[in-house]
Amino acid sequence: MSHDPRIVIALGGNALGDTPEEQQRKIEAACPSLIDLIAQGNEILVCHGNGPQVGMIQQAFDTASAVNDKVAPMALPECTAMSQGYIGYHLQKGIKRELRLKGMPWHVATVVTQVVVDRNDSAFRHPTKPIGAFYTKEKAEALKQADPSLTFMEDAGRGYRRVVASPKPVSIAEAASIRNLLDNEYIVIACGGGGVPVYANEEGDYVGVPAVIDKDFAAAKLAETMDAEYLFILTAVDHVAINFGKPDQKELSAMTAAEAEEYIAQGQFAPGSMLPKVQAAVRFVRSGENRKAVIASLEKAPLAIRGESGTMITR
Amino acid sequence: MSHDPRIVIALGGNALGDTPEEQQRKIEAACPSLIDLIAQGNEILVCHGNGPQVGMIQQAFDTASAVNDKVAPMALPECTAMSQGYIGYHLQKGIKRELRLKGMPWHVATVVTQVVVDRNDSAFRHPTKPIGAFYTKEKAEALKQADPSLTFMEDAGRGYRRVVASPKPVSIAEAASIRNLLDNEYIVIACGGGGVPVYANEEGDYVGVPAVIDKDFAAAKLAETMDAEYLFILTAVDHVAINFGKPDQKELSAMTAAEAEEYIAQGQFAPGSMLPKVQAAVRFVRSGENRKAVIASLEKAPLAIRGESGTMITR
Repeated sequence: MSHDPRIVIALGGNALGDTPEEQQRKIEAACPSLIDLIAQGNEILVCHGNGPQVGMIQQAFDTASAVNDKVAPMALPECTAMSQGYIGYHLQKGIKRELRLKGMPWHVATVVTQVVVDRNDSAFRHPTKPIGAFYTKEKAEALKQADPSLTFMEDAGRGYRRVVASPKPVSIAEAASIRNLLDNEYIVIACGGGGVPVYANEEGDYVGVPAVIDKDFAAAKLAETMDAEYLFILTAVDHVAINFGKPDQKELSAMTAAEAEEYIAQGQFAPGSMLPKVQAAVRFVRSGENRKAVIASLEKAPLAIRGESGTMITR
Repeated sequence: MSHDPRIVIALGGNALGDTPEEQQRKIEAACPSLIDLIAQGNEILVCHGNGPQVGMIQQAFDTASAVNDKVAPMALPECTAMSQGYIGYHLQKGIKRELRLKGMPWHVATVVTQVVVDRNDSAFRHPTKPIGAFYTKEKAEALKQADPSLTFMEDAGRGYRRVVASPKPVSIAEAASIRNLLDNEYIVIACGGGGVPVYANEEGDYVGVPAVIDKDFAAAKLAETMDAEYLFILTAVDHVAINFGKPDQKELSAMTAAEAEEYIAQGQFAPGSMLPKVQAAVRFVRSGENRKAVIASLEKAPLAIRGESGTMITR
């Protein structure tokens, strides 16, 4: 191994708050954990979610373009690209500040990232990922009539929301740029919001698609592509648990990929919550030798790498 | 010199259109000129403006946050960061496409860039740069009362607009990342919209400021910092002209920095239009040996480097 252990960190968009002020504050609170991982002798890449943020950007353009002719309607890939600039700017400021506080001379950069998906991914036939505003049934039907390519679904009794496909990441368009920075000891922020989803057309050019790539799967693909030793999926809980919420709930400190798949088959993990995290972890550890995934809380990430918190998934 | 001639290209935000569709189309039309410069044996960095785009993003958030509580008000630095993601995404797609058409294996990356300004820049005492929507006098006064830090000015009889400071760039926070990519033969998109303006506080941390850095000055600073041989400021006209619009109008194919300053003193160049371009050019050629600036039309950039179009400014 010619480099320090490399860690891809997947940071949830929900952990970043709903306003710019909140986001800056929450990022500052998260940075000590991230930089501790570097102080321990690792290289880090940060992949962040953008659910609430891209939802807000989309709603800003939806609401404003309906009443203000200076504002153009904005498609989802462009909104995701905006969210990468918005969140990356705050992350690089926050990380740089923490580096200064710890006296560490590292550099940090945000790379605007396109993630390539398969145009024939079955996810496109079954859009499941809710984005943006809640609508009444009537409004949802009117929007569908105006643009039949859109799909709406009822969301937990709170109204109707647009749903988009969540295809699996196939490759990372800017992989070479990211690797280059990383090989020169930069902290790289990449694949924000799971990346801007694109497919390659017949000519080989990238075309944006109105979809959302799960950031845990994008982080797993990034970790695989960058030959990372670790994938850290940081969330609100300290451990993965089985029998969650039952008297015999058990927090796991470790599991193998085979055990994880057994638990998945038992329906132990909530879809849209712990399930994709465990799936992404399994995907990564299966992608090569000596690859470990850790699902842990943001606060305890530096402990988790020493096995003192979190759930470590191994091959 | 250990590298190919390095060119920083300043591309106007007005040349990028008002909607995402228009932007993608105009970028595709611009890319052959940019890639021709590489085919001629040069390295390129692209710095783009964002006037219409950041205005649109700001208006989207202003309009929507007033009526939709899911949309937070968004400050100008964050809007600029969003515009870097938005425009960078289209530029890297367009450039990659053109590279494919020409069979060139280069990589392209967008780096989210903060540009450091001096908190005591006199520009902060005299905000001049109009941004966003037009208001009636009454509305402007009400907004000013709600937030006394805002400044409004009448704009050419079309109403009142918010004006912000346009401080000079002092340094580029992500210079090391940009240089690293460039040294490895990447096409780098950086300092979009003149960069997100930040100052360094007492502790040395970056703080965003509601200002706009002129993209031509940011490009000149980028060219200086990256030891570029050329600064190309691309615009809608083929040459810089003196006695513009008069019977004795004269298009210049070359001028020295001293001649340029003489013309500036004569008031030959329109403020907010040709003047900052000529000033940025002079600043760059004065910043070191063997530095040349070219002001030319986008279409004729590949001719301009051979002196067959455009105006070349030398020391």
